[in-house]
Amino acid sequence: MAEAAETLDGWYCLHDFRTVDWSLWKALSDHEKEEAIQEFNSFLTQWELIEQNREGSYAFYSILGQKADFVIMSLRPTMDELNELETAFNKSKLAEVTVPAYSYVSVVELSNYLGSGEGDPYAHPRVRARLYPVLPKTGYFCFYPMDKKRDQSDNWYMLPMENRRELMKSHGLIGRRYAGKITQIITGSVGFDDWEWGVTLFADDALQFKKIVYEMRFDEASARFGEFGPFYVGSLLDEEKFMKMLAV
Amino acid sequence: MAEAAETLDGWYCLHDFRTVDWSLWKALSDHEKEEAIQEFNSFLTQWELIEQNREGSYAFYSILGQKADFVIMSLRPTMDELNELETAFNKSKLAEVTVPAYSYVSVVELSNYLGSGEGDPYAHPRVRARLYPVLPKTGYFCFYPMDKKRDQSDNWYMLPMENRRELMKSHGLIGRRYAGKITQIITGSVGFDDWEWGVTLFADDALQFKKIVYEMRFDEASARFGEFGPFYVGSLLDEEKFMKMLAV
Amino acid sequence: MAEAAETLDGWYCLHDFRTVDWSLWKALSDHEKEEAIQEFNSFLTQWELIEQNREGSYAFYSILGQKADFVIMSLRPTMDELNELETAFNKSKLAEVTVPAYSYVSVVELSNYLGSGEGDPYAHPRVRARLYPVLPKTGYFCFYPMDKKRDQSDNWYMLPMENRRELMKSHGLIGRRYAGKITQIITGSVGFDDWEWGVTLFADDALQFKKIVYEMRFDEASARFGEFGPFYVGSLLDEEKFMKMLAV
Amino acid sequence: MAEAAETLDGWYCLHDFRTVDWSLWKALSDHEKEEAIQEFNSFLTQWELIEQNREGSYAFYSILGQKADFVIMSLRPTMDELNELETAFNKSKLAEVTVPAYSYVSVVELSNYLGSGEGDPYAHPRVRARLYPVLPKTGYFCFYPMDKKRDQSDNWYMLPMENRRELMKSHGLIGRRYAGKITQIITGSVGFDDWEWGVTLFADDALQFKKIVYEMRFDEASARFGEFGPFYVGSLLDEEKFMKMLAV
Amino acid sequence: MAEAAETLDGWYCLHDFRTVDWSLWKALSDHEKEEAIQEFNSFLTQWELIEQNREGSYAFYSILGQKADFVIMSLRPTMDELNELETAFNKSKLAEVTVPAYSYVSVVELSNYLGSGEGDPYAHPRVRARLYPVLPKTGYFCFYPMDKKRDQSDNWYMLPMENRRELMKSHGLIGRRYAGKITQIITGSVGFDDWEWGVTLFADDALQFKKIVYEMRFDEASARFGEFGPFYVGSLLDEEKFMKMLAV
Repeated sequence: MAEAAETLDGWYCLHDFRTVDWSLWKALSDHEKEEAIQEFNSFLTQWELIEQNREGSYAFYSILGQKADFVIMSLRPTMDELNELETAFNKSKLAEVTVPAYSYVSVVELSNYLGSGEGDPYAHPRVRARLYPVLPKTGYFCFYPMDKKRDQSDNWYMLPMENRRELMKSHGLIGRRYAGKITQIITGSVGFDDWEWGVTLFADDALQFKKIVYEMRFDEASARFGEFGPFYVGSLLDEEKFMKMLAV
Repeated sequence: MAEAAETLDGWYCLHDFRTVDWSLWKALSDHEKEEAIQEFNSFLTQWELIEQNREGSYAFYSILGQKADFVIMSLRPTMDELNELETAFNKSKLAEVTVPAYSYVSVVELSNYLGSGEGDPYAHPRVRARLYPVLPKTGYFCFYPMDKKRDQSDNWYMLPMENRRELMKSHGLIGRRYAGKITQIITGSVGFDDWEWGVTLFADDALQFKKIVYEMRFDEASARFGEFGPFYVGSLLDEEKFMKMLAV
Repeated sequence: MAEAAETLDGWYCLHDFRTVDWSLWKALSDHEKEEAIQEFNSFLTQWELIEQNREGSYAFYSILGQKADFVIMSLRPTMDELNELETAFNKSKLAEVTVPAYSYVSVVELSNYLGSGEGDPYAHPRVRARLYPVLPKTGYFCFYPMDKKRDQSDNWYMLPMENRRELMKSHGLIGRRYAGKITQIITGSVGFDDWEWGVTLFADDALQFKKIVYEMRFDEASARFGEFGPFYVGSLLDEEKFMKMLAV
Repeated sequence: MAEAAETLDGWYCLHDFRTVDWSLWKALSDHEKEEAIQEFNSFLTQWELIEQNREGSYAFYSILGQKADFVIMSLRPTMDELNELETAFNKSKLAEVTVPAYSYVSVVELSNYLGSGEGDPYAHPRVRARLYPVLPKTGYFCFYPMDKKRDQSDNWYMLPMENRRELMKSHGLIGRRYAGKITQIITGSVGFDDWEWGVTLFADDALQFKKIVYEMRFDEASARFGEFGPFYVGSLLDEEKFMKMLAV
Repeated sequence: MAEAAETLDGWYCLHDFRTVDWSLWKALSDHEKEEAIQEFNSFLTQWELIEQNREGSYAFYSILGQKADFVIMSLRPTMDELNELETAFNKSKLAEVTVPAYSYVSVVELSNYLGSGEGDPYAHPRVRARLYPVLPKTGYFCFYPMDKKRDQSDNWYMLPMENRRELMKSHGLIGRRYAGKITQIITGSVGFDDWEWGVTLFADDALQFKKIVYEMRFDEASARFGEFGPFYVGSLLDEEKFMKMLAV
């Protein structure tokens, strides 16, 4: 039996992708539109407050192409809080003119392949900052879920720990070269959703998403063992940008 | 020809995942909403009574993310009773504002890989308690269906019984380490639904779902032979919580 | 080139799975409901008459879970008669409140792997009884389509006839042990639908479906070469049971 | 690099599968129904005229099962003409009560594996008759798309030309034995649609579809290298039969 | 670790495939139809102006078959501009009668396998013309997304750079033989969408799409390593042709 690497787990995470039904939106009266926007802005205000209090975090981006129109990514200490957040949105006026497009349930995760140092890792401020992060508000956002393959001779989960550690180390080195250009949030979803991990990338230059994922694809950890789900990419939203997006 | 392990089979099982159409729900009058909730509560009361009489059992959880809004998991002695239960729900007022999201048909199963001891196993009180269980009402719920692979050299069903027994024993040891943290209900679905087994996990700490499934993935029985379907995870519901969830 | 085994082919077969739109059904007036049921009962009467005249046969079962609410399985001497039957149902009042869920087109088939004996096999009464069967009205029904694999070294269609004959013989021996418990109708669908065969099982104990399919899965013919589509399982319907099912 | 076999290419081909929304159809007034049928009949008349003028051809069949209710298969010298034909149907009254079910874009193709003889093959009357065919009006129709596999050691496109020629020759011999029973139209769709070829079969005995496809499946060209998409099968339609089918 | 080839990246690209809901379109009043067309024409005018100013480019084609009715392919310097363009269309009157059919997000890409010459490649006029192209307005259009395989021994990303360079060179030679017949735009989508590349082909003879894709399929770079998504093919649209297409 291969040995599992311990993981450190932080806040629970929900990615909630939504598509606007523009015909329904346009059919609302000006008053209803105003109401829908105000109600949604009150959510934004609330999420910002929670973020300021370090009781969670959020990201809000438009999505390019037909897969979705926007995504709300939320971090919270418990699944129940995410459930409440999701239900509150579902009951809102804005939700009436949106259609669910995709969602992902996971938990912020730090792999322990590289060793955890001494003492309780959850007590290290640097570890805590990564497990309970403030999500960046960069210009661009990218999300994709992924698995490690279990396909005949390319079976990640049958590799000895030592090999996996080597492969993850090389993988991490690529990531490090993008420091300052890309912020990466890894969330684990084994037992929670259909892929094993979610990868969320933040950058001010969208091209960096392509560069890092392409470069990593040649790395053995991805080349032999990575399997990738759908990719979602888009631009920063806020109250003002969203109001402009919805203006008709 | 490889020898099949005998299984012990208990109550039939139906997982019924539903999504709320919130626009339809909100469009109901207060009176209709009240009526829908009362009718559904009368189902809950009935299911609890059946559970108290040990003539079946149920679990009722919300589901996080867009895959579904809630699940009703039901155990009954016959398929006909599950069919009636499903049809009764389908005809209800609440069902009018929900959309089917996923379902799973199976039967509570105990594998006999580890030997069955002497005498009629169905007469052992410990066996009976597992074949006709009272489903836990823990804080969190997790469900996923799975197969054993039949892929070239990774073909579970071509392994000699002795190898399978060894692999399942190692697998069982991991499970045992989660005793007290996770209650696991295995239901067999060969001949009933699209995967070979359903796995339902109950825990008071949702993170344990991730830990056990991740740890098991490195175990050869899963690493080489496991194939996994969609994962559903969520929080406990009851009359009060459900009314709160539906309050608009 | 591997040699194909001759098959004997009997009646054409259509499995027609339907889901009830309960909101639409409930919205019908009592008179319309009555009309819909009477019209459907006149179909049932007609199908029974055809069955009595040995000009075809039918089975009518509810389906457990969300995949469908009921199935009508029909056997007829020609595809045109199946087409007419399907169109007649499509035009009916009841069809207005149902949604197509799944269908399967095939023809009753007897494999000739085990030798056909002397003379014209279509003249043997025992063969005729199997090619033009009266479908059982047992308590439970199970349907699934399947393929024989063509995957690298596990390629059924590249095996010499002699090997395939051996494998099918062993496979048949399992089936024989379920005689009296399960009636199995094999229908061939190469050239007609998306899988190569349909398997329809009838039993008075639903658990037997699980037992036979599970046991066969360890048999090399299934373990190495079987690929399985969706499984549908359910309980016997008739006029009375169906009326009860639809009663609101 | 393996050498591609030259192909000869004839008329462009569109298979357009449609499902009738029977509730919408029944909701039309008698006058609207009459109008819809007359408009569609004027299309049929037009397509027959084009066929008589050898400027294209068509086939019109009902489809058995839920995949579709009917198919219009059209051949034309250019894609633009097919586009116009499709758009004209889309704008028709009948189209209002149908739902797109499946379509396939391809071009009539003769493989050149068996050698093309001397001179300009496009000038040979026998070749021209096959590239610009009059589609048969037999009792039954069968369509399926297919690929040649590229799976590890079973990679058609890595085989030397000589091997492919041998395999196709053996394949062709099976086809020849069905001469008189089945007319086969091969259309190439590389670069046009999701599979590499479409296969359309015409016969007066539907069972021949099963026999030829089953027999070919044991032929190495199919057994090792064939991958098959959805199968559609059905019965001849014409003005009269279609009117009967739609009569309510 | 295999070395990634540097790529040169130009304008961002959005393919937006749409299906017309003809019943909705026909239900609009003449005035609304006129309004919808005029609004869409003003988009066309705007896109042409941007193209003339070399601040982007566009292609507008009908799509044959049921996959979509038309595609708008847009190139812009930033993702934000594509997002605005998409949202503007979504809010338009015409969008009310269309349904999203498929979309693809990518960026114009030049592979650097063949060496980049000296100096800043982005400064070379020939390179710039390819990174910031004016899309052709040929008679026909073809689009498909693709991946390089990572399947056991057929793993593109595990090949040494030298081998990949050789394979791409051979691949490029085929492409070169179609110079003058086909214009090919390669867009990279790693990190942006579900496949690794998008391939858009422009030609005045639609048959050339089939010829080049078929010929390339025998080339080892495709035969062993190419995986292909859905194919979309169609004919040139402009204001006049589109008005004719929509005329009812």
